[in-house]
Order: sequence, then C-alpha cells, then structure tokens
Amino acid sequence: MLKDVSPEKIKKYTKNELNVLCDKLRLVIYDTVTRCGGHLASNLGSVESIVALFYTFDFPNDKIVFDVGHQCYPYKLLSGRYERFSTLRQAGGISGFPKRNESEYDSYDTGHAGTSVSAAIGLAKARDLKGEKRNVIAYIGDGSFNNGLVYEALSSLKIVNTNILIILNDNGMSISPTVGGMYDIIAEIKKNGKEENIRLLESFGLSYVGVKNGNDLEEMLDSVAQAKEMLKNGSVLLHIATKKGKGYEFSEEHPTNTHGIPPVGSPKEKEYSEVLGETLCALAEKDPSITVVSAAMKEALGLSEFFKNYPERAFDVGICEENASVLCASMAAGGLKPYYAIYSTFLQRAFDEIIHDICAQDMPVTMCIDRAGISGADGETHQGVFDLSYLSFIPNMTIAVPKDTEELREMLHFSATYPHPLAIRYPRAGRVLFENGEKTPIVAGKWEYLHKTNSAKATVLAAGERCLIIAMKVLKALEKTGKSFNIVNARFVKPLDTQMLQSIDSEYVVTMEDNVALGGFGMMVNGELLRLNKTCKVKNFAYRDEFIPQGSVSALQSEYGVDCKEIEKYLLEVLL
Amino acid sequence: MLKDVSPEKIKKYTKNELNVLCDKLRLVIYDTVTRCGGHLASNLGSVESIVALFYTFDFPNDKIVFDVGHQCYPYKLLSGRYERFSTLRQAGGISGFPKRNESEYDSYDTGHAGTSVSAAIGLAKARDLKGEKRNVIAYIGDGSFNNGLVYEALSSLKIVNTNILIILNDNGMSISPTVGGMYDIIAEIKKNGKEENIRLLESFGLSYVGVKNGNDLEEMLDSVAQAKEMLKNGSVLLHIATKKGKGYEFSEEHPTNTHGIPPVGSPKEKEYSEVLGETLCALAEKDPSITVVSAAMKEALGLSEFFKNYPERAFDVGICEENASVLCASMAAGGLKPYYAIYSTFLQRAFDEIIHDICAQDMPVTMCIDRAGISGADGETHQGVFDLSYLSFIPNMTIAVPKDTEELREMLHFSATYPHPLAIRYPRAGRVLFENGEKTPIVAGKWEYLHKTNSAKATVLAAGERCLIIAMKVLKALEKTGKSFNIVNARFVKPLDTQMLQSIDSEYVVTMEDNVALGGFGMMVNGELLRLNKTCKVKNFAYRDEFIPQGSVSALQSEYGVDCKEIEKYLLEVLL
Repeated sequence: MLKDVSPEKIKKYTKNELNVLCDKLRLVIYDTVTRCGGHLASNLGSVESIVALFYTFDFPNDKIVFDVGHQCYPYKLLSGRYERFSTLRQAGGISGFPKRNESEYDSYDTGHAGTSVSAAIGLAKARDLKGEKRNVIAYIGDGSFNNGLVYEALSSLKIVNTNILIILNDNGMSISPTVGGMYDIIAEIKKNGKEENIRLLESFGLSYVGVKNGNDLEEMLDSVAQAKEMLKNGSVLLHIATKKGKGYEFSEEHPTNTHGIPPVGSPKEKEYSEVLGETLCALAEKDPSITVVSAAMKEALGLSEFFKNYPERAFDVGICEENASVLCASMAAGGLKPYYAIYSTFLQRAFDEIIHDICAQDMPVTMCIDRAGISGADGETHQGVFDLSYLSFIPNMTIAVPKDTEELREMLHFSATYPHPLAIRYPRAGRVLFENGEKTPIVAGKWEYLHKTNSAKATVLAAGERCLIIAMKVLKALEKTGKSFNIVNARFVKPLDTQMLQSIDSEYVVTMEDNVALGGFGMMVNGELLRLNKTCKVKNFAYRDEFIPQGSVSALQSEYGVDCKEIEKYLLEVLL
Repeated sequence: MLKDVSPEKIKKYTKNELNVLCDKLRLVIYDTVTRCGGHLASNLGSVESIVALFYTFDFPNDKIVFDVGHQCYPYKLLSGRYERFSTLRQAGGISGFPKRNESEYDSYDTGHAGTSVSAAIGLAKARDLKGEKRNVIAYIGDGSFNNGLVYEALSSLKIVNTNILIILNDNGMSISPTVGGMYDIIAEIKKNGKEENIRLLESFGLSYVGVKNGNDLEEMLDSVAQAKEMLKNGSVLLHIATKKGKGYEFSEEHPTNTHGIPPVGSPKEKEYSEVLGETLCALAEKDPSITVVSAAMKEALGLSEFFKNYPERAFDVGICEENASVLCASMAAGGLKPYYAIYSTFLQRAFDEIIHDICAQDMPVTMCIDRAGISGADGETHQGVFDLSYLSFIPNMTIAVPKDTEELREMLHFSATYPHPLAIRYPRAGRVLFENGEKTPIVAGKWEYLHKTNSAKATVLAAGERCLIIAMKVLKALEKTGKSFNIVNARFVKPLDTQMLQSIDSEYVVTMEDNVALGGFGMMVNGELLRLNKTCKVKNFAYRDEFIPQGSVSALQSEYGVDCKEIEKYLLEVLL
C-alpha cells in the first residue's frame, strides 16, 4: 500500500483506508528506525495528524515547516520517499530532517528548535507579496514551544501581518518531559480548556482550536478541516494532544529512551557523557557550590544521576540554550561553580551569551560540550564542527580537548578550581586510550608529548582522541618502514602551548583537528608560529569549508579533510 | 546635594527631599549626556523608580540587574559615582552600562537585551544555595521584554524555584516604539488592567503589582514597599508606566531621537547608514522582491525612509534578532530578496540562525552590518570587533568590507543579484574616500590595488575604510623618504582573492583589519598563503585578544593593535 500511496490518492481514501495507512506508517517507521537508528517515539505520535494534513491540504503547493524535524518521517513516507526510506540517516540516503534538496515537498530545512513559526511567517509573507495562493503551516512540538525564538515569532505575527497555521503537537515531552511556565499555560488548556490561557494565545493574533486526541484520525480530520477554513480569516493555532511513542507499548512507556535511538544491536561504547556524569557527582559531593544546567538533554549528556542525587543543584530549563548560559554566568557571579552541559551544535544558540555574559565578565563557568566534531547520522544541522572556531577568538576563554575519557575526568577535576570560563569539548563515543601511560598533570595551555624521538623531522599536533588515534595509526605504519615522528596531545586549543611551539625543532609541523579549518586549531597554530618567527613548514588537516552531510564519522572525517591515508602520504613525503 | 548623597542618607530623606533629589538627578543626567553623549530619554524616565528603590532596598547587599543598562544612570549617581560621572563614556571613565569592576553596587554586567531576568534568577539561586539574605531585582524596559530570552527566563522561574522582583519599566518604547504581540498583552494591562493578561503573567509564578504613574514618587514609594513585602512569599512583577524623556519637553516629545545622543555640537559625518537607506530605497523601486528587516533599530540604521516608502516590505520586529534572521531566511526561501540591517554586536544573537537557517540553506540574504569594528564610547559590550571571526568560517558565506560609503553603494547594487548569503560590514562614520578614483567593478572575492609600484618589497592588504586610511597615511609618510609599498583594498574577506595572493611578488605581506586577530582576516590570509606555498613573510595588524573598553575609536585602534606608528615602523624596517 505505502509503495503506491501518493498525496493525490490519500485524498480519495475512506476513513478505514486512512486508518490502515496509519498502521502501515507506524510499521515502516518502527522497522526502519530500529534498523537505521533515528527518532522513533516522536514520529510514532505524529502519524494521524500528518495523514490528516495530506487529506486536507495540497502539498507541495501548500507548505509545511517541521520544527526541529523529529516528527517528519510520516510526511516523508507520504511524499514520495517510501522507496528510499530504508536509507534513512545513511550516507547519501534520506535525511532524518527536512531537506529542501531532497524533495520539493520540503520547504524549509530544520534541525534546531524553535525556528518553525518564524519560518512559516516568512514563507507566508513571501506568498502574500508575490500574490501566490497557498497555505503555510508550522508543525511544532511542545518542547520547542518553550524556546524563546518562538515568542519572538509569535510577537511578530501581527507586525508582519500574514496568516499561518501553527500545529502544536503536544505530547508533554521534549526529549525529557517538557517543563516551564510557558508550558504550564499550554498544559492547563490541554487539561481543562482554561479559557483565559486560550485568550492569551489569541492575543498574539491566533484563533485557537483544541484537539483532545490527536491520535484519533477522525478527530484530526475534522479539526484540520476546520483549521483550514479558519485560516482564510487569520492565523490559527491547532493544539493537538498526542501520545509520544503511540502504538508501541514500550515506546509509549519509555518516550525519553525511545526519542532517538541507535540501530538495534549497536555495540555499546563507554561514552564521554558517562564520565561527565560520574565525575560531576564526585566533585559535587565535595563542593556544595557546584551546580549543573542543561537545556532539555540531561539523559543524553549523562546527567541523570546528578539530577537524582543533587536535585537542588541541577536545573533542566527546557530547550532554552540562551537562558541556560545566562543562568550559569549569573550563578557564577553569585559565587557558585556552574557546569553547562550541552551539544556542540546547540551551544551555537548561546554564542552571544558566551561572549557577553560568561567571557566579558570572566566568569568561572565550565561548558561541557558533547557531540563535538563530526556527529554522523544527523547530518548538516547537527555536526559539531564549528565550536573551536566560534570559541577560540573570545577573550578570556580557555578551550580543552581531552585525549580520552580518562583525560576528561582529569580536566573536570582541573576545572573545579579554574577561575575562568572553560570549554571542554569531546565527541560522543570515547574510550580509555592511554590506560597505562604516565600522566602529565593538566595545566591550562600545556600540551604533552605522547611520542617523541630525537631530532624527528616532523611533529604532529593532534587535538582530541579521534585525531590522536589517526596519528598513532600513521606512526605505527611508518615505524614499519623505519620512520618516525613526534606526536603531541594538543589538549588545549586555547591558550596554545607557546613554550612548546617555541621549542619545536623539527622541520615540519602538522596540525590535526575534528573541526573546520577556518578559524580552528590549525589556523591558531599558524598565527602563533608566525608571531614566534618560527621557520618550520606547517600543514593543517581539518575539514574544508562546506556543510558536512550525514554519514559515518570515520568516512566523513576522511572525506572532508582529516584522512589517515593523506596524512600518511604527506608524512612519508616529508620524512624522506 | 548629590555630592553628599549616599544610599544610607536617602532612606532618611523626607518625601520633599526625595522629590528635590529627583530633580537634581535629571539636571545632572541632562547636563552630562549633552556633554559626553549617552542615553538620555530612558534615564530621565527611570529617576523616580530608582530613587524609590534606594529608599526601600539595601544596596549593595540587595542586588539589581539592569537590562541593557540604558536606565542605570540615576542608580550610578546614587551609588557613589556622582563625582566621577562627568567622565561618562570616556576613556577610563564611568561606563554607560553596569560594570562589576566599577562599583560593588553593580552586580552583573549588561549591554545586550533580555539578560536581566535570567541573571536575576541565577543570582537569587546562588543566594538560596549559599544561605544568604538579600533581595534580587531585575529592572527591564518594555523593549527588552519582547526578547525571546526573557520568555525562556520566565519559563524557568518555577523550575529554578527562587524569588526575584522584576521591575518592568514600561514607557512604550524600545529605541523605536515597542511593537509586537507580547507587548500588546502588557500594554492592555497598562491601559485597562486587563485581568486575564495579568493572570498570564501570574502563570509564570509572578504576583503582579501595577503602577499607573511610575514618575510619581509617592506612588513609586508605596508600590516598591508593597513589592518588597510580597517578595518574601514569591516572585513579583512590578509593572510601572513611565514617560521616556520625562522632565524634558523635547525629549518627551522625541524619545527616539533622544534615546542615545552624541555630545551636543559633534560634527555631522556622512554615515554609512544614510547610504544604506538611500540605496535600498533605490533598489526596492526596481525590484518588488526586496524586503527589509530590522530589530528595533530602523532609525539608527538609516531605514526611516525605506519604512515610510515601502511599509508593506519593511518589518521592524522589535529586539528579536533571532526571529529577524529566520524571517529573512524564510522570506528568501519563499522567493523574496531580504536585507537584514543590524549592528555588528547584536548580530551575535543570531549566530546560530546565520549558520542553520541562512547559510546551511544557502539563502540570498544580505546582512548589512553597521557599527562594525571598534564602536567607541559604549565599550566592551558594543564593540563590533568579532564579526569577521564569527562569520568567516561559515560555509556559503561571503563577506564584503567597503572601502568607503560609495563602495557600500556599489556593493549593495552588487548584492541585488547575488544568489548567496552576503554580509557587508562597515563602521558608523564614513566618507567618500576615493571620489575621483577609477572604479573596478565589484566581483565576489576580487580585490583591487589602490596603489601599486613596480617590484615593491611590501604589499599591504587592508580591509575597510579605517585601515585603508591608515595605510595611505603611512604611505604618504614613507614616500617622503623615497620608499613605497603596494596597497590593496581587500574588499572581500571571504572569499579571499586567491589569484591576487598567488600573484603577489613582494617579499612582505601586511594585513590590517578592524577586528580581533584570532579568526580574522589576517589569519585567513596566513592560511591561504600557506596553502599556496607562498614564501613571503606575513605580518598581521589586528586587535589583541582582550575585551576592548570604551574610548575614542582611533585611540583604541592604536592601543589594541592597529597602530599607525607601529605599522610605519614595521614597514620602515622591512623596506630598508
């Protein structure tokens, strides 16, 4: 059935056929996500509403923007992408997020929270000014509805003066349960239809339609039709209550664990996040001033235990990265020692606050930046490949890059008494690389040699575990041919170890990083060597100036500029 | 009287004395601001409320965070800074914004909008966890109250579980009149005490107190005392209606023009903003797809005429930089040609959206970035010295830096058909530098020689008017001693003119930019020369890695790393 389904056909289906379609969509989603990894629970919950939208609206002439995109799989399956859906999140395959270059049905790319309402307003205004006829829809979950950008957008609805339909898919969950004052307002409406809260939404210029069960197809069909009619006269908020994970008992009962899942049977790695959680708990036991702030990601960041053990010092503020940053800065101003745990790509949202609140005031906030570097299957919008570039030029900032999970632990101990802003960035998967190696103590801006030979012709400065693994692999290969080079664990990207750079006497210096080349570690080293009047020849390995799509981490690293073979080839040449 | 006033004494003043104090504060503020420049109208409006706060609360034990800081002059004058107040906004003098390093009375630095509520929550939680006794106050204008960050903060008030007092100083103005759905909700309360809107605010966990005339001292004294009492039991919103510019007829009638003013008698320069406004009007006449988006700054950005002439294509969305960016990206996705005019320092707020919405989708949005480079008297929080660093590593981004106001005009014409994201950055004051020079057409990534001699030993690559002026000054001085060098107008910082870099045959290359060194133009050039295997020696002139305080533009340029004398000295040495 799904093979032959098309937006045109859906409009002619009977209610019974539509219900069968919903079941089939769930089956494909479950089957594909357990095989490829991806977002399960949210996509199970959105099935009926999306089927109802296809029944009522005319895509792709009508346009829809999915906030974040965690709910767009049913939409993809119904808009001509069923056949290719088995390639979900794989290199060259279907993206887990809306992508304009994938289908004319996708009108706006998303991945970060809170953009959909603004985007729908912009698309609708373009329609108005160009005299086109089409409906524009923002489809947003209650988790995103907490994000400040959404209020900026709602506030501008009357200013921009256009009509959009907002579908608020309310399952009471972000990745963690949704929390916060604004959500309470929404939740009260869902619970008891509280009139004054509805009027609040109306004061943004929205007419309100509530749907008690957004997983009931008939109810959805009726209310979507009603909303479409109302849209002729002004903007509409269609508030639908759905069940995250709907249709699969385990997912319904464990919506957080089944929000995003890896392929079933994936090997379990010791992750950096586990070390973060353990170490912060240990530190907090001794230091009552330690607090932890998260933006709706506490489980994925390894903080569940901390939140359980220290509830009075642990704050999950929802998908509000800016607020989380200012809370950290001000807690530090008040004499606390805050830790801000976040994914690299989402920290971009707090960029101004890192400059203006944390660094300009030189506050001892520690940013624990997970999913740094290439993150893999989530693609362009989720790669953490910019953080070294956007943090390194901020005055008062220190940036640490652990060589393995054990070094993250040591860096966190180091952070406990470090009196300045500190960013520690690391990828998801990690390991203990140097179990028996001797440890050099962590000092800000000090690197360590992991391999050093007398009068080596080349020195490799590698930032972080992934790069060190490649460097050591190359060393092993070269040593077989009797050649060798120095390897430095460049564990601070800022400040650089100027003293070590000054003392390097090898003819060639190679930098490696899990970050874009522009503005990154290598360019910092180039500048410093220039300033020091060093005459060594430098070669930077880092990612080229492009958005990096989905794929496996190692394949993308290699394809975009940090390639084991290339590095080996370069070193073989210069070590001749 | 102001000379001898102290927080302790104020508490003992009679109401009559307090009223006299208000008058004297107005006098000093008016006198100082007309002499030093600064924020006039907002500080005239906040006088009574701040006097009432001193009467009732115990600063500095109690803490107050001023949002942005445009209303803190009365607070500074009453907290021991009267004597030094005549140095307002001058090098080494009193800052126009709250500064912790200036006084123990300043508990949190601000300058950008919307941070105060988060900051107060963080300070209050620190108090709770440390078992301290103090009140914490956020003082915020209605303009900032539109910013998304404020809703993130309000949403987290119950989560963080602490008590703060929010004073919403509502004068109906940002810099321009306040607009938007959220402000309408506030405005309705002010107008007719609308109960359901009050309950909305209460659902964030706030008790509401309204003050009809926040410029009436008696009313303020009563309500501040009431709020202090209520604060014992939970967070409070004290909503005061004030008059921006209060006490000076001209300022009351022209609150936008007297929001921030230069010292009276300052020479009028032809500003880049004027050229922006003129040119966009001219372009919009021919191209109906052109739209303009601003975040509460249309006048300062030169857009008043555009808003008057093209109201249906001009959008001022209030202090909502993120929303403004996504609106631009989505308008472009819908087939329009949007221009986003903004100050360099405020664009930092839209950093993630520039990456995620504008550049990842390769949208033809033109960002017109005013007040780029050192901006002068506003100090650390307002310097536009990071934009080259935070924009240059974003894939798909093009960055242009005009050599003078005429070249801005040409670049805007160039932008009209440019199909990618484009940032044009320029300082406030500008001039026509090259009135009679021949013009080379604007091509992305192509530079031009402004001065070229055969076999010159050095080539200076200067980005932007300020740097070119210095380069030409140095050239003039050196030519007197028979020496010369090449000067290049490096009008694109991205992409670099690789062809020209390749062809440079001088031994020395000097880069100059009005930006921090790290991640900036010079470092881009270093990397490119390295890639090209060029052996020329490079020297970068750019700002060192520090937050740059207030002062005159030229003095700060010179002090922080772009110094005419230093450049002359360097060139004299290498041209020997």
